[in-house]
Amino acid sequence: MTEATSRIGVTGLAVMGANLARNIARRGVPTAVHNRTTAKTTEFMAAYGEEGPFTPAESLEDFVASLETPRRIIVMVKAGRPVDAVIEELTPLLDEGDIIIDAGNSHFPDTVRRTEECAANGLRFMGIGVSGGEEGALLGPSIMPGGDPSAYAEVEEILTSIAAVVDGTPCCTHVGPGGAGHYVKMVHNGIEYADIQLIAEAYDLLTHVGGLDAPAIAKIFEEWNTGDLESFLIEITAKVLAKTDEKTGGPLVDVIVDQAEQKGTGTWTAVDALGLGVPLTGITEAVFARGLSALRDERRAASTTLAGPTPGDGPDGLVDDIRQALYASKVVAYAQGFAQMRAASKANDWDLDLGAMATIWRGGCIIRAQFLNRIRDAYAEHPDLDNLLMVPYFTQAVADAQDAWRRVVVTATQQGVAIPAFASSLSYYDGYRRERGPANLIQGLRDFFGAHTYRRTDAEGSFHTRWGQDGAEVRTDG
Amino acid sequence: MTEATSRIGVTGLAVMGANLARNIARRGVPTAVHNRTTAKTTEFMAAYGEEGPFTPAESLEDFVASLETPRRIIVMVKAGRPVDAVIEELTPLLDEGDIIIDAGNSHFPDTVRRTEECAANGLRFMGIGVSGGEEGALLGPSIMPGGDPSAYAEVEEILTSIAAVVDGTPCCTHVGPGGAGHYVKMVHNGIEYADIQLIAEAYDLLTHVGGLDAPAIAKIFEEWNTGDLESFLIEITAKVLAKTDEKTGGPLVDVIVDQAEQKGTGTWTAVDALGLGVPLTGITEAVFARGLSALRDERRAASTTLAGPTPGDGPDGLVDDIRQALYASKVVAYAQGFAQMRAASKANDWDLDLGAMATIWRGGCIIRAQFLNRIRDAYAEHPDLDNLLMVPYFTQAVADAQDAWRRVVVTATQQGVAIPAFASSLSYYDGYRRERGPANLIQGLRDFFGAHTYRRTDAEGSFHTRWGQDGAEVRTDG
Repeated sequence: MTEATSRIGVTGLAVMGANLARNIARRGVPTAVHNRTTAKTTEFMAAYGEEGPFTPAESLEDFVASLETPRRIIVMVKAGRPVDAVIEELTPLLDEGDIIIDAGNSHFPDTVRRTEECAANGLRFMGIGVSGGEEGALLGPSIMPGGDPSAYAEVEEILTSIAAVVDGTPCCTHVGPGGAGHYVKMVHNGIEYADIQLIAEAYDLLTHVGGLDAPAIAKIFEEWNTGDLESFLIEITAKVLAKTDEKTGGPLVDVIVDQAEQKGTGTWTAVDALGLGVPLTGITEAVFARGLSALRDERRAASTTLAGPTPGDGPDGLVDDIRQALYASKVVAYAQGFAQMRAASKANDWDLDLGAMATIWRGGCIIRAQFLNRIRDAYAEHPDLDNLLMVPYFTQAVADAQDAWRRVVVTATQQGVAIPAFASSLSYYDGYRRERGPANLIQGLRDFFGAHTYRRTDAEGSFHTRWGQDGAEVRTDG
Repeated sequence: MTEATSRIGVTGLAVMGANLARNIARRGVPTAVHNRTTAKTTEFMAAYGEEGPFTPAESLEDFVASLETPRRIIVMVKAGRPVDAVIEELTPLLDEGDIIIDAGNSHFPDTVRRTEECAANGLRFMGIGVSGGEEGALLGPSIMPGGDPSAYAEVEEILTSIAAVVDGTPCCTHVGPGGAGHYVKMVHNGIEYADIQLIAEAYDLLTHVGGLDAPAIAKIFEEWNTGDLESFLIEITAKVLAKTDEKTGGPLVDVIVDQAEQKGTGTWTAVDALGLGVPLTGITEAVFARGLSALRDERRAASTTLAGPTPGDGPDGLVDDIRQALYASKVVAYAQGFAQMRAASKANDWDLDLGAMATIWRGGCIIRAQFLNRIRDAYAEHPDLDNLLMVPYFTQAVADAQDAWRRVVVTATQQGVAIPAFASSLSYYDGYRRERGPANLIQGLRDFFGAHTYRRTDAEGSFHTRWGQDGAEVRTDG
């Protein structure tokens, strides 16, 4: 008979699960570990068994039996069907009030569904976002737990103890009920797409307009990492660009194929924004840019067929202009992502604390950055903020950067360098600061061809013009 | 006992259904008509009963009994649950091989599902896209029928007889099986979003940079409608802009509220493109621009807070530059939409004839345009074309227009006018013609933070650099 001595269990010992389990056990927390293929558990114990109080289990039954009640079980398997399969296997082995924690990159509607299914079986389910990659999982990730507050209370101590810490604050807080944790993780990843695309556009301009090679651009990113742009992604951009390829002796980046892959979370974020009606141009352009990069054969054919300028010498001050364009575009991308979370919070009654989201992203995760302190401060002062651009710090930052930002878009446009994220972020900014845009014409056209009606600036109600008949305007709302 | 004398029936007599029924009966086709609320049928017969051989029915039973077999029933009710409700009611009344035709704006996955459900009950189901609004439905729409070819054969004569005709060719052809018809209609609407957004951006620039008023811009669109841009939307833009408001005596468009509404098909198109991984920036930016226009209160607040240039005098040649920018951006939007249909056709095994799609969009529908002849010609010559930009006609058209296009993007950027669709179309063009883009850096970063691996330009296989350890590169695919 197995003794129920472990405080928490981890099933799924691929690198993310293994590292989370190690992170937990290293804090002295008795941790049960299990993997469908027993060999993996054996390997795990051989490699890391001395690191902490582990209890390995060969069967799911033994695994469950080795846990204190209420049982706390972290599931770290591939998103999708495998998560459901593990839940199905666990369910008959568990007791009322036990807690299943999906720490993988699940799509939040699945988390909502699983929460309901588990609740119907008397179980508490949590979906928690974990960002930071393998290293983060081991040394301190950013953790975005969603689910029942009573369940969170049972795991709060463990989760906060393994999370990254910034200025004494752990990068872990209860995000909200149901799918909220995985939702926030999804938007985190979407923002990561935008951040990376902006960096790629800056790199492209520095290469083809600036005429600089990878080591020179590495130095620029290294310098940028000492200012407003300071962040993990800028830091590692410098490292990646500085890396010499063992085989060719040149920059590694020069021999990497220019086709970006994706795992889907950027797409989910864009799809969700479309569903909410929230303009999310930066992240979406980043997703589409990856799609375009994948069309390598088509691009090769087009490169000799489609006309366009060849980029040449950049104007004076190009490097610093690009830095400012990158910063302003980044502000817009974050403003859009936070506006999306705000809309989702309203739509789902999640009551998200957006300042807390910025706080837990300051460390551990891929988009960790100094910058997030400013976002945290913004929501601390204005919890009901519609848009980050409207707080003085960001208003001023973009005001200061915008001349440079426009110069960069102009130069790229003239020289034929694609800058989908720089340009769309600027268009969003210019569209957002317009008291009156051109959508009045759109409404006029829709009324003409589809009798969709329009509203007037000088009267209440809905109106239709009988365009094809007598041309008279009629009120349509009674 | 009702006699089965009608060749086809229409249930749902709101304006679209009523006009379709009238269009059919006016050709001498005996047509049964039915509406859930009988009063509507009575009104219909009172107003239009003399137009053709109608048989009104009060009950669905009588309606079904009045139809020849195999029965052909057009359902024209609100998309969503109402369609399912009508199918459920009809099913027990029908015989094997009868045909239910959903002519509304259904989302294609629903059409796929309904096709299967009907097949399980021995019924043939068709989803047909109908474009052209109320007037088109009556006088000749563009019709995009999807479903079983045997079912299409039973209605082909009627559908082609009521469709618009261009150069002797009816704007109706069998699109493909299952959801193909509604899919193509969805992309049609998506392209319509892009077309309209581009027109709105041109209008905005002519107003705020060109300093022109609505009647002057109306004249410009009227003139544009005599050249490459000739199309229904350009034609009605001139009419909408020329319209004087009865109440104020000024241009009507100046008193229409600048918040664009939407019915969802643009969003579906963008969501579908994201799922397929097809870059669809023009349509998606158009959808987001409508979302941004809806934030009227936020924009009002931002207009006095966020800094930016005030548009002033335009450069020489602005009007014709805008015309060329509009044309080039339109070519890109269509190239993207057709690339999306091509990808969907492959993914769903639909074997879409893209040239035929261009052909049936030449008349009847909202995006009808001369331009579509060029697309039809392109696919006639190159049925396996990856991208419309690659046929000589469009390659040359964009080559000719691109200097003007770049000048417009530059001017708008400098003067602070939002041009999301102009700019993103240009970035797509510049990205598409790049043999090597900057996604190599993206892959390097992904490998750094997530061990996602990369490929090399000079070797087969997948590689990972042990960034955090010894910095060595390892092959990861065995």
